[in-house]
Amino acid sequence: MRSPNSSSPDVDLAPDSGLLSPVRAGAPAEAATSDRAWLQALLDAEAALVRAQAHLGVVPEEAAATITRTARADRLDLVALARRSRGAANPVVALVEELTSAVAATDPAAAEYVHRGSTSQDIMDTAAILVAHRTTGLLLADLDRVAAALAELAARHRDTPMPGRTLALHAVPVTFGLKAAGWLQAVQEAGAQLRTLRDRLPAQLGGAAGTLAGYVEYARIAARPDVPGYADRLIAAFAAELGLAEPVLPWHTARGPLARLGAALAEVTGALGKFAVDVQTLSRTEIAEVAEPAAAGRGVSSAMPHKRNPALATLIRSAALQVPALSLVLAQAMLAEDERPAGVWHAEWQPMRECLRLAGGAAHTAVELAEGLTAHPRQMERNLALTGSLLITERLAAVLAPVVGKVAAKSLMSRAAAEAVRTGRPLGAVLPDLPELAGRFDEAALAELLDPGRYTGAAGALVDRALAHYRRTVRPR
Amino acid sequence: MRSPNSSSPDVDLAPDSGLLSPVRAGAPAEAATSDRAWLQALLDAEAALVRAQAHLGVVPEEAAATITRTARADRLDLVALARRSRGAANPVVALVEELTSAVAATDPAAAEYVHRGSTSQDIMDTAAILVAHRTTGLLLADLDRVAAALAELAARHRDTPMPGRTLALHAVPVTFGLKAAGWLQAVQEAGAQLRTLRDRLPAQLGGAAGTLAGYVEYARIAARPDVPGYADRLIAAFAAELGLAEPVLPWHTARGPLARLGAALAEVTGALGKFAVDVQTLSRTEIAEVAEPAAAGRGVSSAMPHKRNPALATLIRSAALQVPALSLVLAQAMLAEDERPAGVWHAEWQPMRECLRLAGGAAHTAVELAEGLTAHPRQMERNLALTGSLLITERLAAVLAPVVGKVAAKSLMSRAAAEAVRTGRPLGAVLPDLPELAGRFDEAALAELLDPGRYTGAAGALVDRALAHYRRTVRPR
Amino acid sequence: MRSPNSSSPDVDLAPDSGLLSPVRAGAPAEAATSDRAWLQALLDAEAALVRAQAHLGVVPEEAAATITRTARADRLDLVALARRSRGAANPVVALVEELTSAVAATDPAAAEYVHRGSTSQDIMDTAAILVAHRTTGLLLADLDRVAAALAELAARHRDTPMPGRTLALHAVPVTFGLKAAGWLQAVQEAGAQLRTLRDRLPAQLGGAAGTLAGYVEYARIAARPDVPGYADRLIAAFAAELGLAEPVLPWHTARGPLARLGAALAEVTGALGKFAVDVQTLSRTEIAEVAEPAAAGRGVSSAMPHKRNPALATLIRSAALQVPALSLVLAQAMLAEDERPAGVWHAEWQPMRECLRLAGGAAHTAVELAEGLTAHPRQMERNLALTGSLLITERLAAVLAPVVGKVAAKSLMSRAAAEAVRTGRPLGAVLPDLPELAGRFDEAALAELLDPGRYTGAAGALVDRALAHYRRTVRPR
Amino acid sequence: MRSPNSSSPDVDLAPDSGLLSPVRAGAPAEAATSDRAWLQALLDAEAALVRAQAHLGVVPEEAAATITRTARADRLDLVALARRSRGAANPVVALVEELTSAVAATDPAAAEYVHRGSTSQDIMDTAAILVAHRTTGLLLADLDRVAAALAELAARHRDTPMPGRTLALHAVPVTFGLKAAGWLQAVQEAGAQLRTLRDRLPAQLGGAAGTLAGYVEYARIAARPDVPGYADRLIAAFAAELGLAEPVLPWHTARGPLARLGAALAEVTGALGKFAVDVQTLSRTEIAEVAEPAAAGRGVSSAMPHKRNPALATLIRSAALQVPALSLVLAQAMLAEDERPAGVWHAEWQPMRECLRLAGGAAHTAVELAEGLTAHPRQMERNLALTGSLLITERLAAVLAPVVGKVAAKSLMSRAAAEAVRTGRPLGAVLPDLPELAGRFDEAALAELLDPGRYTGAAGALVDRALAHYRRTVRPR
Repeated sequence: MRSPNSSSPDVDLAPDSGLLSPVRAGAPAEAATSDRAWLQALLDAEAALVRAQAHLGVVPEEAAATITRTARADRLDLVALARRSRGAANPVVALVEELTSAVAATDPAAAEYVHRGSTSQDIMDTAAILVAHRTTGLLLADLDRVAAALAELAARHRDTPMPGRTLALHAVPVTFGLKAAGWLQAVQEAGAQLRTLRDRLPAQLGGAAGTLAGYVEYARIAARPDVPGYADRLIAAFAAELGLAEPVLPWHTARGPLARLGAALAEVTGALGKFAVDVQTLSRTEIAEVAEPAAAGRGVSSAMPHKRNPALATLIRSAALQVPALSLVLAQAMLAEDERPAGVWHAEWQPMRECLRLAGGAAHTAVELAEGLTAHPRQMERNLALTGSLLITERLAAVLAPVVGKVAAKSLMSRAAAEAVRTGRPLGAVLPDLPELAGRFDEAALAELLDPGRYTGAAGALVDRALAHYRRTVRPR
Repeated sequence: MRSPNSSSPDVDLAPDSGLLSPVRAGAPAEAATSDRAWLQALLDAEAALVRAQAHLGVVPEEAAATITRTARADRLDLVALARRSRGAANPVVALVEELTSAVAATDPAAAEYVHRGSTSQDIMDTAAILVAHRTTGLLLADLDRVAAALAELAARHRDTPMPGRTLALHAVPVTFGLKAAGWLQAVQEAGAQLRTLRDRLPAQLGGAAGTLAGYVEYARIAARPDVPGYADRLIAAFAAELGLAEPVLPWHTARGPLARLGAALAEVTGALGKFAVDVQTLSRTEIAEVAEPAAAGRGVSSAMPHKRNPALATLIRSAALQVPALSLVLAQAMLAEDERPAGVWHAEWQPMRECLRLAGGAAHTAVELAEGLTAHPRQMERNLALTGSLLITERLAAVLAPVVGKVAAKSLMSRAAAEAVRTGRPLGAVLPDLPELAGRFDEAALAELLDPGRYTGAAGALVDRALAHYRRTVRPR
Repeated sequence: MRSPNSSSPDVDLAPDSGLLSPVRAGAPAEAATSDRAWLQALLDAEAALVRAQAHLGVVPEEAAATITRTARADRLDLVALARRSRGAANPVVALVEELTSAVAATDPAAAEYVHRGSTSQDIMDTAAILVAHRTTGLLLADLDRVAAALAELAARHRDTPMPGRTLALHAVPVTFGLKAAGWLQAVQEAGAQLRTLRDRLPAQLGGAAGTLAGYVEYARIAARPDVPGYADRLIAAFAAELGLAEPVLPWHTARGPLARLGAALAEVTGALGKFAVDVQTLSRTEIAEVAEPAAAGRGVSSAMPHKRNPALATLIRSAALQVPALSLVLAQAMLAEDERPAGVWHAEWQPMRECLRLAGGAAHTAVELAEGLTAHPRQMERNLALTGSLLITERLAAVLAPVVGKVAAKSLMSRAAAEAVRTGRPLGAVLPDLPELAGRFDEAALAELLDPGRYTGAAGALVDRALAHYRRTVRPR
Repeated sequence: MRSPNSSSPDVDLAPDSGLLSPVRAGAPAEAATSDRAWLQALLDAEAALVRAQAHLGVVPEEAAATITRTARADRLDLVALARRSRGAANPVVALVEELTSAVAATDPAAAEYVHRGSTSQDIMDTAAILVAHRTTGLLLADLDRVAAALAELAARHRDTPMPGRTLALHAVPVTFGLKAAGWLQAVQEAGAQLRTLRDRLPAQLGGAAGTLAGYVEYARIAARPDVPGYADRLIAAFAAELGLAEPVLPWHTARGPLARLGAALAEVTGALGKFAVDVQTLSRTEIAEVAEPAAAGRGVSSAMPHKRNPALATLIRSAALQVPALSLVLAQAMLAEDERPAGVWHAEWQPMRECLRLAGGAAHTAVELAEGLTAHPRQMERNLALTGSLLITERLAAVLAPVVGKVAAKSLMSRAAAEAVRTGRPLGAVLPDLPELAGRFDEAALAELLDPGRYTGAAGALVDRALAHYRRTVRPR
């Protein structure tokens, strides 16, 4: 191995800094998915393989220990390795050469056991899964914090009324607690999906074309008495060394695990993205029902001194707009011909990394947003009053339906609403003037019916439902 | 309701025939996802809603019975309805008018209870879920048949050697049984994923903005003593009427269920697509290791009399290339603002239908392909022999590694392979001439080492593993 | 040919009605892309081919006339044809049989010339291009109307100030004219792109594998003296018959034309979608600066009598959210292996049709939206005043910069804005109290500086720029 | 500005090395799209803005010169900047602070003119366009080399027959020259599309909300007599400083330019990807009609000594599978609400960069592939003979059609082909035995008809057509 970066004078010209992807700049997922982290995962896979072989007696334990000790990413020149990876179209061939030389430098005998019986894809896929396992662990921890904060919001605002909005217009009242409960539930479902998948992320072990022939051959040469069941045991030992699930078969060209990972990450950013677009709408100058947490430098504009942009929601949404497309590449990569496809496999790596770090960045950003979000109940009340009870017409139509019939009731309320809009008078003033309603309501009953804060249906009960579900499913921490 | 098609003279100009989508032409999923089927599902949702309300005592049982009887899609003019749906941007408003009129024609009192307290999205989403539930049921039955056929292929060809191919070239030998086992395992995993999801497909019930206020209001007006828990009971009754899962919350803008459905269907077509691309490759004139089942008119060319195109694999692959993109629309629709988004929701319907019918068509087509696929072991053998044992170099390098060292062994075999290619001599003839190997192998040992059929590693054991897993997970039918 | 639909009793069960795609229900693009229209285009391609061959003397003119006369889609059973198309994985083989029989029924000799020397893909691709050519013609006519209406809006509201909004918040003032000009410019650019592409849509002619060998062979058999240049002449004659562009080469597997078409249609829906999302935002209850045109049944809710949903914008946005994903399938189909790919080609048809009819439906819907959109200048004024001149801080910072320095000026205005928000006082009241500004402004100058309507920069000049560009590029109609 | 990397000890942990994207590792497009390059482009935009203002007399020339001199990316700490960019959700705010400080360090007066009247998006968009302009310049140069090499291949192999393949099977003969001409034509069309677009890449200048109010305000303060036309002149001067096109309007939320760029890059990788998948197929062990250029380390396997994988085609295909999905993000970003969307804009940067560097990497890789590709005419001949003339059935059917009728001729040849396959006899032996053909052909005529090399139709003429088109359109270099 060379000294760090020695042969790549331009390495500092190309850090992957997040300049174009601020949602993940500095987030835990960024470090966990860096080139360096990936390289370490490749080396971890090599080391685990030799330890598994040692465990089964086909490699000396000392060789395994030496290789494990030597398999450190910080000793490798990443840029040089990346460029050499063009030759084989993947970085493993060059990496094995580097690792072999490094081991040989201290223990030539041990070097013989590096990558024994193996193939690039076993190492590359296992490393990808390791990176995914580590990064989703960080992501899920952040998602738990998001959920806790949203549960707290839902409980606190269980009975805070605000306008419900459909197709951009005021519809009927909802509560801010129900809104937060909806965000919570989506985040919980996405987290549960990802957690289940994470527990099943499989190691990859198949050898050159999925028969494990190379591994078995070395066991045969080592004259192991147990060659027949050797493959089973090697798969189990390898997975155990890595803390990963054991696959039924090598999945060199059965790419369900990665396709599912992409889909689960898209669901995470989808759930967080829904939260973000709602925060943006509710932050609009005219609506102003919520505010992002303030912080020095947060939401600053280069032009306008008065702005406090909803920057956190913006960052989250930027991730949510990218991950589905990147995840699509993984879904399409299931069309993997032969025992290793020429290009389809190679197309997975970068989109998979992007999915992980964008979703991880979005979750990390959402922690700050959810924990710091401020609701403005007064402004919600003001907005509820904006249309003079128009968003209560559904209720009045229901009250009138048994009296005048469903169709007539709806048509009556449509007319009343139009009249209220035309004249600018509140609905409560228009209704008593309608001949059909003359004498129907006493003033107090009408006032109560027209109060948006009293027409929130089962909102409270639904919040309770969501919180009960949350408490059942939340992991003890 | 009008008489069928009366107002739409051009209806016959626009059947959705599958002309441009032959993979699903005539497949069970086609009928199950037709406009007519969707319309029936909308009506089923309306009828279930009123029955659920009757069950809870807020609607007369007879009214529920009348509405259920009247809710038949074949009485509606689809084209007229579709055009009227532009007004509300969804078909439910017009449908409710039609259904109300039809019920009123026989029982005006019952007509009062149509769509009571409800909203378009409750009906539209529930209908979409019903269609998904029905179609995926058909799809899974086909997938079970595909799996059974592939399991049979894997068992029959457990020990049939063939060339493994990586990056387009011969790699090391595999078995056709292992190949079939790989297809099987991917299909099983995709099926399991879809089956789990299908059992959890939730009914939708939230009312105008997710608070169920309209439903609750009618219960209040009916002076039900149990208004506080009414929403819980209504959700449960509605889901039970439909045989669907009960949601924790209304999911008007928490679109995980549809995003997950899209992803699961993309995994289905991905798994089938992998099978299809392999069949195509193995069908190539030069390779000819498998053949699609013959049938009258199958694989016919309009130009070339001799052709028997792999038409089934072609159809399946055509679906697998579309579903991920359509599924992406569903993933992105999670960014659903407010209590009902203006356009995001509306963008889901057609892509969701396409995902269902393409995946359903692919599964139906795959039954025929898997059940009728013929393998040609002789041709596999011929192809194995094509390179004069070159695809055994991995084994020889392993055998030599303990003797000359890993790096030297690999380099030696590279040289031998290049020499064999250059001279056109088989590897078995080249090796004894290499000075490094002089006297290393006796002829018989070398012949055995060079026999591709004896270098299939753990292929047989892996087939057994996959079949054992299949037998454990297959549903008793 | 059979009598219409005779063998398909369930044809009326499956009209492609637009129930799930209301944006195109009844739009011109719907009829122009129907299965029936596609079928007619297939027949038009067959007829043009034989006329082109007649023109070059290798087919009798009368045969060409008979075939042309017989090539009518209304005589064919679409559903039966679609199902038979599974055999060859495309509908042309079955269609050729039907057409041949139909011609033979009146003129057996002419039947010999149907599809002579041809291949399915020549017919299918040419038909797809014909459908695209026809549909984009309709689409562009609608787009011209959209542009004209937006130009009118831009001119009328050249100087109508309204709040500019960035990252969801008030930024600095803009004018509604500039907003309309932005919509116009995007629509113009998308239209220009599509128009250029439409003029270059190429016919397809290559024969079984792109060499035109079949066509040339028939010319050879007919002992044409001009065989050497025959291919060139046949391509030219075929394209001329159809009014399509002449390709440089057959493009069986060079799918740029369709990929470009998809991208151009995505740009159309992108431009219209931008218009739609702005209309939605400006329609929000709290903002209310524009209103969609009213019409009977438009924007109706099934639950809420008071609602007038922005249904047109909703429909347009629903299309804009689908077309990019469908267009992606076309872009990916460029990876078309061999001389005809097995499945990649087949995956194009349905997404291409959907792109055309969604974009066509969106354009048709946008005509109504653009021509009927109402602006509310009073409400724009009210919204401009909402923050008490906060959206003028940029201007004040500019005015102060030369005096106190850029950084100090921005920081001063940030403080003033924060103070105004904290105290609820207008900026004009806060500023004179700041010690740094004591005596800087006289009251009148300050009032003028603080008037949002006077800080619209070059908005008017930009509107003029856009209108001048529009007038230069608009096609005389 | 800080000393390089001082505050970011982990910068070397995260180089963007191409480890996961070897297709672009070390390619010119990689350096041209690096974070550092992007940062320089941001600074170039700031400097050009101040020079344009100086040119119009509102900024002192010396200040412009100082700022230009100071605007050097190598003095900035990228990682620190990226992390600070989270505050504003874009890097420009922090960058402006850094640049202002750096300028102030030598010339406090000049610092006043940094970013004067500007907004983040003007700088960020202009930088993105600069990066695109620079990178596509490099890409097009590589594409020109690819085209030249393919033209050379087409000319050299104008008359080299090989099997045409459709739906995976031998169809009719083609020539390798025609195949190369098809690759060439697709590359030329994609290049032409990109070149046109590149010449129109517009600078961005609009100020805070697209009115240029800030810029105009500073001109007003400077008491410029020509304020009315100032915006027009500033746009022109800014574009001229950068060598970019002048936009009709600010395109802050009219994202056609980037959507078109994405589509054009997807067409480039689509065209190159078609070339790559054909090379892969033709490289298959059983087909072996072409070979990638050999090079040390090229195509090496970590397991199998004999392998020479088609690594270049693999790399190209890996890019072609990613770019359409990344381009989709750009297409969807056209739905950009308001005067600056919150997240939609921010989602463009990383996908756009990836499109550029993947397409650039693919083009660079394709140079090597196209210039070094070897064709094996002998093997093509062997493959042509593989089916004993079956791929000539189309010709024979044509010859027989005038004699026995079209339908009978095709059916006769189908029978003959089936018989040849069943018995393993060549078609030439089967045909004379058919009673219908008894005495039809003399032996010599039949032999000529059956010679695949003589049934290449207009392949030669088509190659000439493509080369003539190439020569007309190629840029003089």
